[in-house]
Amino acid sequence: MDRRKFVSALGLGLGAAALAGCGQDEKPAASDNNAAGEKKAEALKWDLVTTWPKNYPGLGTGANRFAERVNAMSGGRLTVKVHGAGELVPATEVFDAVRSGSAQMGHSTPYYWKGKHPAMPFFTTIPFGLTAWEMNGWLNFGGGQELWEELYEPFNLQPLACGNSGTQMAGWFNKEINSVDDLKGLKIRMPGLAGEVIKRLGAIPVQMPGGEVFTSLQTGALDAADWVGPYNDLAFGLYKVVKYYYYPGWQEPGSALEVIINKDAWNSLPQDLQHIVRSAAEAENQHILDEFTARNADALKQLVNEHGVQLRRLPDDVLMALKDTSDQVIEEVIAGDELSRRIYESIVAFRDASMPYQEVAEQALLNSRTLVLKDA
Amino acid sequence: MDRRKFVSALGLGLGAAALAGCGQDEKPAASDNNAAGEKKAEALKWDLVTTWPKNYPGLGTGANRFAERVNAMSGGRLTVKVHGAGELVPATEVFDAVRSGSAQMGHSTPYYWKGKHPAMPFFTTIPFGLTAWEMNGWLNFGGGQELWEELYEPFNLQPLACGNSGTQMAGWFNKEINSVDDLKGLKIRMPGLAGEVIKRLGAIPVQMPGGEVFTSLQTGALDAADWVGPYNDLAFGLYKVVKYYYYPGWQEPGSALEVIINKDAWNSLPQDLQHIVRSAAEAENQHILDEFTARNADALKQLVNEHGVQLRRLPDDVLMALKDTSDQVIEEVIAGDELSRRIYESIVAFRDASMPYQEVAEQALLNSRTLVLKDA
Repeated sequence: MDRRKFVSALGLGLGAAALAGCGQDEKPAASDNNAAGEKKAEALKWDLVTTWPKNYPGLGTGANRFAERVNAMSGGRLTVKVHGAGELVPATEVFDAVRSGSAQMGHSTPYYWKGKHPAMPFFTTIPFGLTAWEMNGWLNFGGGQELWEELYEPFNLQPLACGNSGTQMAGWFNKEINSVDDLKGLKIRMPGLAGEVIKRLGAIPVQMPGGEVFTSLQTGALDAADWVGPYNDLAFGLYKVVKYYYYPGWQEPGSALEVIINKDAWNSLPQDLQHIVRSAAEAENQHILDEFTARNADALKQLVNEHGVQLRRLPDDVLMALKDTSDQVIEEVIAGDELSRRIYESIVAFRDASMPYQEVAEQALLNSRTLVLKDA
Repeated sequence: MDRRKFVSALGLGLGAAALAGCGQDEKPAASDNNAAGEKKAEALKWDLVTTWPKNYPGLGTGANRFAERVNAMSGGRLTVKVHGAGELVPATEVFDAVRSGSAQMGHSTPYYWKGKHPAMPFFTTIPFGLTAWEMNGWLNFGGGQELWEELYEPFNLQPLACGNSGTQMAGWFNKEINSVDDLKGLKIRMPGLAGEVIKRLGAIPVQMPGGEVFTSLQTGALDAADWVGPYNDLAFGLYKVVKYYYYPGWQEPGSALEVIINKDAWNSLPQDLQHIVRSAAEAENQHILDEFTARNADALKQLVNEHGVQLRRLPDDVLMALKDTSDQVIEEVIAGDELSRRIYESIVAFRDASMPYQEVAEQALLNSRTLVLKDA
């Protein structure tokens, strides 16, 4: 794990590197390609820029598989080349590079673009919000996709869901958290809205690129850090300096990834290639979650059994305080923006309808499974 | 809802209708199509036969969307036509129709084919086994797909996952179940392995086509019935005659659906069309679950709020007894069959590795969400 890579690759909002190397001259041959099946299409070569390092486990590997699907299904009529963060453009510039058409596609997660619109993070996840399968249910059968397209339309982008990390962890802590008071004064690496939430509970949120987290925990510059989940956290080595690994990931119940496509490039595609890109994204949407499901399980076992990591659940009163404070913060975010409110309320309505069902379905099954297998 | 349709369509193992109307003369133009991109392929017309009635909610609609994906992505080079149960062949004959090549594809669920091999049901679900996302994790990152292909190879079939119903319900009961003793003497419509499990606990499993369940519950010929989940159960009207709706679906934690493809037809496809079929199945695999996730939530709300259905959780001691008995029944199923044992043990190993992770991830999140939102 080359930590320096992360400084530029995942230091979103901090890495100030200029847009570089994005002068691609492949353009989709628009007018020639609109009549699929009637006319021989020219081979298209597209660039896909990502906010993760090339081949980064779970995220970069998913981007690679998405591209391979498109390339294989199109029989070479559309070839997508994946560029890791910093190769064509830095991570922070992915959205604008695709918006402007200097790259045709990006693989990322919406909350990185919260500077563009306050509702962006809602398409990644919201505190105590939707699980991965509920997010997909909302997008495809609850009006979510239509709202997403409405949000991205002014940016000249077509969004498609392409991956989910599943429920993340609450983070690594250098001491036990037994009450809300224990959060006070703690310097916690926690980005975005969740950072604002813990700030109101007395903690000190620190915005810090991934690459600095390990050393900062070691020196005491940080007391705690939210990274991703067992698979990525194990590779990152955080267990070497802190032992308390808290759950559940109240701040990221199921973080969705996106493929974004320049709308002019998208509109220039013949219908069959549009369908190929859509199904490739949807197939990979599940496949990325599959990778996290399998690898997180293996990694957690290693963290606990080989590295002595202590799993701890956030106490009820802390969870309640996080929920109430999250609601306040989000209410401020959506105040005065009609679209943000509409999106947020649509997600909450879906969750509130889904919750009673989950309580008798997946959730009940998982709890029963724990019951009968633990006692076995 | 035409209940008579179900008698033939879902009365697997009972509907004795002969193979009918399956003399298709479209054959894949094998040798001409192996060089994708080098040679203009002839348009292929394939038949997909299903074990569900045409357009059946969640299942038939998923089969339709799978076919539409293939048709759209291939730009008409491969056209898949969906036939509901009984149209070309009865539900019971789907496996053999595809095996023999009289239809090129089927959409079904593996447990219907338990007469072909004892391990078949394991690829649908096992009691207290994998959730939908764990099943996909196992198939794609836990060796499951390779085992599935090994199992189907002698039958000349290529299997692909294509849909999941999510966790089902335990079933409809005409009285409360407060202990294992309450199961004794109950006539319960419950197919397959789960039927054998409840038999050993004193109940009387009844194999019965879906179409007869409603009337049998009404007349008292049945005391209880397992159907699917809220979405399909609401449409089926069972709430009109029984009020206790039990969870969790211990017998079907996440029931997987399959696309099966005749191996000769599969091998005759050019590479790009094979990739199109694979990604279409994987995209639809998630999309079918999305439909159940959204629709089950809405249907459960209607069942409880509008139809007075009483939700009940199976007591702990009943769940424990179901688990122990399931283990015994499965041990007998796999005894003496090396492949069955290898498949079952692979699933159990994946579940046992996944469980501690789920307990701090999805499961913990769902329980925390209930906590903070119920008290809100």
